[in-house]
Amino acid sequence: MSDYQAFSVELADKIAHVLINRPEKINAMNADFWTEIIEIFRWIDATDEVRVVVLSGAGKHFSSGIDLMMLAQLGSQMGPDVGRNAEKLRRKILELQASFNAVDQCRKPVLAAIQGYCLGGAIDLVSACDMRYSTVDAQFSIKEIDIGMAADVGTLQRLPRIIGDGMMRELAFTGRTIDGEEARRIGLVNRTYPDMPALLDGVMAIAREIAKKSPVAVRGTKEMIRYMRDHRVDDGLEYIATWNAAMLQSVDLRVAMAAHMSKQKPEFAD
Amino acid sequence: MSDYQAFSVELADKIAHVLINRPEKINAMNADFWTEIIEIFRWIDATDEVRVVVLSGAGKHFSSGIDLMMLAQLGSQMGPDVGRNAEKLRRKILELQASFNAVDQCRKPVLAAIQGYCLGGAIDLVSACDMRYSTVDAQFSIKEIDIGMAADVGTLQRLPRIIGDGMMRELAFTGRTIDGEEARRIGLVNRTYPDMPALLDGVMAIAREIAKKSPVAVRGTKEMIRYMRDHRVDDGLEYIATWNAAMLQSVDLRVAMAAHMSKQKPEFAD
Amino acid sequence: MSDYQAFSVELADKIAHVLINRPEKINAMNADFWTEIIEIFRWIDATDEVRVVVLSGAGKHFSSGIDLMMLAQLGSQMGPDVGRNAEKLRRKILELQASFNAVDQCRKPVLAAIQGYCLGGAIDLVSACDMRYSTVDAQFSIKEIDIGMAADVGTLQRLPRIIGDGMMRELAFTGRTIDGEEARRIGLVNRTYPDMPALLDGVMAIAREIAKKSPVAVRGTKEMIRYMRDHRVDDGLEYIATWNAAMLQSVDLRVAMAAHMSKQKPEFAD
Amino acid sequence: MSDYQAFSVELADKIAHVLINRPEKINAMNADFWTEIIEIFRWIDATDEVRVVVLSGAGKHFSSGIDLMMLAQLGSQMGPDVGRNAEKLRRKILELQASFNAVDQCRKPVLAAIQGYCLGGAIDLVSACDMRYSTVDAQFSIKEIDIGMAADVGTLQRLPRIIGDGMMRELAFTGRTIDGEEARRIGLVNRTYPDMPALLDGVMAIAREIAKKSPVAVRGTKEMIRYMRDHRVDDGLEYIATWNAAMLQSVDLRVAMAAHMSKQKPEFAD
Amino acid sequence: MSDYQAFSVELADKIAHVLINRPEKINAMNADFWTEIIEIFRWIDATDEVRVVVLSGAGKHFSSGIDLMMLAQLGSQMGPDVGRNAEKLRRKILELQASFNAVDQCRKPVLAAIQGYCLGGAIDLVSACDMRYSTVDAQFSIKEIDIGMAADVGTLQRLPRIIGDGMMRELAFTGRTIDGEEARRIGLVNRTYPDMPALLDGVMAIAREIAKKSPVAVRGTKEMIRYMRDHRVDDGLEYIATWNAAMLQSVDLRVAMAAHMSKQKPEFAD
Amino acid sequence: MSDYQAFSVELADKIAHVLINRPEKINAMNADFWTEIIEIFRWIDATDEVRVVVLSGAGKHFSSGIDLMMLAQLGSQMGPDVGRNAEKLRRKILELQASFNAVDQCRKPVLAAIQGYCLGGAIDLVSACDMRYSTVDAQFSIKEIDIGMAADVGTLQRLPRIIGDGMMRELAFTGRTIDGEEARRIGLVNRTYPDMPALLDGVMAIAREIAKKSPVAVRGTKEMIRYMRDHRVDDGLEYIATWNAAMLQSVDLRVAMAAHMSKQKPEFAD
Repeated sequence: MSDYQAFSVELADKIAHVLINRPEKINAMNADFWTEIIEIFRWIDATDEVRVVVLSGAGKHFSSGIDLMMLAQLGSQMGPDVGRNAEKLRRKILELQASFNAVDQCRKPVLAAIQGYCLGGAIDLVSACDMRYSTVDAQFSIKEIDIGMAADVGTLQRLPRIIGDGMMRELAFTGRTIDGEEARRIGLVNRTYPDMPALLDGVMAIAREIAKKSPVAVRGTKEMIRYMRDHRVDDGLEYIATWNAAMLQSVDLRVAMAAHMSKQKPEFAD
Repeated sequence: MSDYQAFSVELADKIAHVLINRPEKINAMNADFWTEIIEIFRWIDATDEVRVVVLSGAGKHFSSGIDLMMLAQLGSQMGPDVGRNAEKLRRKILELQASFNAVDQCRKPVLAAIQGYCLGGAIDLVSACDMRYSTVDAQFSIKEIDIGMAADVGTLQRLPRIIGDGMMRELAFTGRTIDGEEARRIGLVNRTYPDMPALLDGVMAIAREIAKKSPVAVRGTKEMIRYMRDHRVDDGLEYIATWNAAMLQSVDLRVAMAAHMSKQKPEFAD
Repeated sequence: MSDYQAFSVELADKIAHVLINRPEKINAMNADFWTEIIEIFRWIDATDEVRVVVLSGAGKHFSSGIDLMMLAQLGSQMGPDVGRNAEKLRRKILELQASFNAVDQCRKPVLAAIQGYCLGGAIDLVSACDMRYSTVDAQFSIKEIDIGMAADVGTLQRLPRIIGDGMMRELAFTGRTIDGEEARRIGLVNRTYPDMPALLDGVMAIAREIAKKSPVAVRGTKEMIRYMRDHRVDDGLEYIATWNAAMLQSVDLRVAMAAHMSKQKPEFAD
Repeated sequence: MSDYQAFSVELADKIAHVLINRPEKINAMNADFWTEIIEIFRWIDATDEVRVVVLSGAGKHFSSGIDLMMLAQLGSQMGPDVGRNAEKLRRKILELQASFNAVDQCRKPVLAAIQGYCLGGAIDLVSACDMRYSTVDAQFSIKEIDIGMAADVGTLQRLPRIIGDGMMRELAFTGRTIDGEEARRIGLVNRTYPDMPALLDGVMAIAREIAKKSPVAVRGTKEMIRYMRDHRVDDGLEYIATWNAAMLQSVDLRVAMAAHMSKQKPEFAD
Repeated sequence: MSDYQAFSVELADKIAHVLINRPEKINAMNADFWTEIIEIFRWIDATDEVRVVVLSGAGKHFSSGIDLMMLAQLGSQMGPDVGRNAEKLRRKILELQASFNAVDQCRKPVLAAIQGYCLGGAIDLVSACDMRYSTVDAQFSIKEIDIGMAADVGTLQRLPRIIGDGMMRELAFTGRTIDGEEARRIGLVNRTYPDMPALLDGVMAIAREIAKKSPVAVRGTKEMIRYMRDHRVDDGLEYIATWNAAMLQSVDLRVAMAAHMSKQKPEFAD
Repeated sequence: MSDYQAFSVELADKIAHVLINRPEKINAMNADFWTEIIEIFRWIDATDEVRVVVLSGAGKHFSSGIDLMMLAQLGSQMGPDVGRNAEKLRRKILELQASFNAVDQCRKPVLAAIQGYCLGGAIDLVSACDMRYSTVDAQFSIKEIDIGMAADVGTLQRLPRIIGDGMMRELAFTGRTIDGEEARRIGLVNRTYPDMPALLDGVMAIAREIAKKSPVAVRGTKEMIRYMRDHRVDDGLEYIATWNAAMLQSVDLRVAMAAHMSKQKPEFAD
């Protein structure tokens, strides 16, 4: 793996562990962060050996969100014409969104392990992950409302598919901080753990479980769930039929069936 | 504010308090109700000073739903031709729906504070609000099934986005009454309070919190969440990018950033 | 009712009780199952006397899912050309999906009563029902991942509309078994019961409640909720207005209103 | 009919003739125009006697489009904050769009008879009509490009459904003027006539033809074609089935059938 | 092939020729017609040997549309309750639509050869075909408007995708008869021929051309064009990528490439 | 501009002329072609000076489509597992599609000038351009059907929005070659020219016309037309309102208005 400024990445047991690694800055998302995350997930997508991803933050916090310096700098690039500024801003936002789209569209499941602060842009980020797990005392807040803007890199777009509409609106309008326990009750995280070591252990165990499954089946499953977020049931049924028309001819099905018959654990190629 | 027959409206501290005010009729929705609610929300939308709305019912109940006299009267207007009756009914229903669309599409957040009965049409109404809060002993029922009809002013259309599909169907098929506690567990209300005074206090506190935020950011946030109820994630991302292309040039962003830096509370223009 | 190999069907008190009846094979879904279920639901749809359906499994388990023999047999029909095999598989999958579409699109509410195993294909099946109820110790698992394939007869398409996105993905990627209690907490089932007799009693009571309502109103309600799963709120409002343009001219509305006025129980024609 | 500033309206033989009546200003669309057109089409929609609408311009030209004074005035209302200006402009545009939506959504067919200039906003307007007819020497131009803006009251939204994509783009990017003959060849108008009298005669003849048909059938037909512009074929089929479920019970069907059998001309009630 | 009452069907040179065969009744669509057409196209879909379909009418006319006796009979089945009648009509319409959906969704291309009358239901039918060819003097009319109803078995749903919106509306509102030449100019038919023998010769020649192509490629092509009628470009691109993921592994690609290299005609298996 | 293998690119008078430059290979699309086209259009998008693009082919032909060597090579990379091959092919197709998406999504109008062969992949390419112009004797063919595959890089997805459905299917099923004149009649090209010099002159004149318009207005216009290809009219109206909320604050509108008042030609900044 290459050398990253904002991250460190490890691959072991078919699991890529992506660590946001600027603990002295509460893992604030700086310019390096936004470009490196694309490279990392492109590498993950292209590397057959990686079957599942764990995403966490170094130090006491997951992340405090976007680096305010970056925002300020953006402001300083504005020219005299409102129209041309608008075009520039629009493209910049689309560019930042692309960073989290890379997580959302990654073909392998991404599990976020969250402790401490998970604020603003960090909510946008974990909304693009497949599953979220946290410590009981993690702190979540849709902080964008407090810097005078509507969240624009994914929270308002993806979170309403994850938590209920009523609570979604309350959290987005007030920026109220909730802890891990409340996050679990509203479906934002799947499970809470007493502390960071327990959290990482728990998430790694789930990741290992997934890594043992047929990678062809796991990727197909992710694609279908992602597809259903935005499509009709009848379109989804037609899509999986077309998808499985090829995939049911895969050797993995036979491997799995044979293992099932002989009561043994199947071994799947990458 | 003008004088209303079915409502009383107050504006204080940037909060419009809209009170259904026919307590002697359990706040049943009569002809006045359906037309006045449009005027009220048009006024709210156009009045910059209003930043958030609280909707509640005078007396012991939120509302018993549509006034059955109105329904009966509708029947009496039917002529001899089924086809022309159908056109007339269709347009009448679209007209009634427009009353609650005015709530749904209001640019400012609308918080419903619900005590006592919340039956039939009242469920349609609160489904069009942003958030719902109630007393523990409030009583909710999709009463339409008991008058022999499928609910047609919003419950069946908006509630499935708010509560889970399985419970949605049970409540709609059976008309079963649930109390505030169960309503909270299934996500219909965000929080319950022991009694009406506590409820109003609580909801007003949340409203005040929202009223302090940048109104530009709050309105953008509401528009985006409303948009996501019906659109794809990729369309939503493109839409917020286009929206924020203008809004990030607003002074509110700078005000908020400056306040954040100086650790002071920001003050936003209406 | 005709004689079925994989089912037994009874009609009493306007309720059709559809029983998967291969207890010695843990109610595995064999070739008979897939064709008979279409005939049964076609009959239900066409029989006015049937107002609601209860679906359960004979013996200790609801169902272990698709009969693996069927899957194996499918494999044996593959020829030398990948392309033509793909077409054949695609059509076979669409054909199997049609069996559960018949449940989903049935005009009468379908209540699943689930005990013991509810695995793989059985999850696809209950996802196509309107409501789900189970014993506390029922066992649910999206088993397809363990036979090396992405679920393709409805689970990945319908379940994300029923339970939260985060837990949906965890269950689909890991195949983890959850019991009735957890199923209730995540919204997969509406209520749990201590054992099978209590479950059947409870579900039959709900079914009887629905059977007493106006069948015109119940069918309209189901159509609307089904429609909203895949359509926009504005389309849904227009659709119900068009639907009710005819249905509000039904005698059921007058029957219900008259009963309501006279505080009596209405009786509706089939 | 009330007295209008920008229009004159006549009703004869079930046909409402709506005339843009500011010939000394080349029928430029001023503030009166935008509000009155809504009133007029609301009246048309509500008046059963009106079965079809003909829209034309007084004098030598159909219309030169939006009154530039109005645009200039809009600019003068801008304040110091880009964000709040954006909100104001957005709502203003939506408001102007509503004027032409009233034409598009009118339940009766609207036939535009076009002579002379049909520029800018006038293209937006005729794109919202059902059919367009013109003199051979009428002049069409998507003029907005020449005042430095993308057309925002309907041309770019509705015209691509009427003419081919390739020519649509050329006309929108270049603002090139085309005459009636070219307009007919690309499908923008249905037919051309040598001069204004012949045009009005021709369009009135078509209008009379439509006015003789069952109004229930005509309105249903318009609703369906409008619906199909934005919906899937399967949704359209389901929608017409639901619509006709009521309308086929109309007396008009029997009247038409009886007339057909007896080889006589049917007479339909309004 | 089985014995049909309303059709005769022949298979030669991989082409199924489906002939509407009630010339003495101007090929009016009676009860037999509506059920047999489903059987015929199910057989076509399942028979690998059939690669392309030609649909024409026996005698001097293609078809005069739905048999009015059928419509009258439908009316006689109505009961006293408007609501229950509406449900019955709605399902009957959906059932009739299914007959033409079978043509639309047939996996093999369907070419209509049209002479003489093509009225009412016959337009609905040919709108569901892939391509239409006619004699110069064929006569087309959306006749439903003249029997007091909006067309409900496909014309209003499919034809707007085939001809321009402006002419679509004129023909649907007026029921005006157009001949083959005008039909060609507006895109309703692809080409006209002087008389019936020339028409059949011409259409058969095109059918033979198609029958020589890879059936895997032809079916994929039809599926994609059908899909694009109702889906977004990005969805279409993803769908073809998923489809071709299997189909590009077909032997047909290699057969075609080899033939191309050696300048010979490829032979494809059914 | 950098040095390209498959292209040469020139920028003059605000017009980028992109020339496919492998005349000795009939401009067949090789590996260089597919990657360079992305780079070129990324550069165009980012270079303010470029306002419009002309795309043509060096030599006697526009392009013969995909290089068959590339296709053959793809086949040679297939492994033993059908499932994993399918995933690889699917991603490869998505990758090729991205090359033409770069043309489709380019913010500046792209005009294709087509002479000689325009076959297979070349049709996919020009379908992604804004407008198409050709010599009268240009030759167009959806050649993919003859190499045993359904076109998968855009023809089947974009062309049905450009030409009529009936002719679309005929051309796709038969691969029939049409010349420039027929292409113009069916709307595939906007205009034909007698020979290559006249063609380039004509297209350059149109390009120069566009280059004089406000670039802000042109880009907004293109975005809107592109958006409408896949969205509803109401969504399009809302989108342009949001877009113009910023853009109407641009200086270009004032420049254009001032020029218009003073009857002078406006000059717009890049």
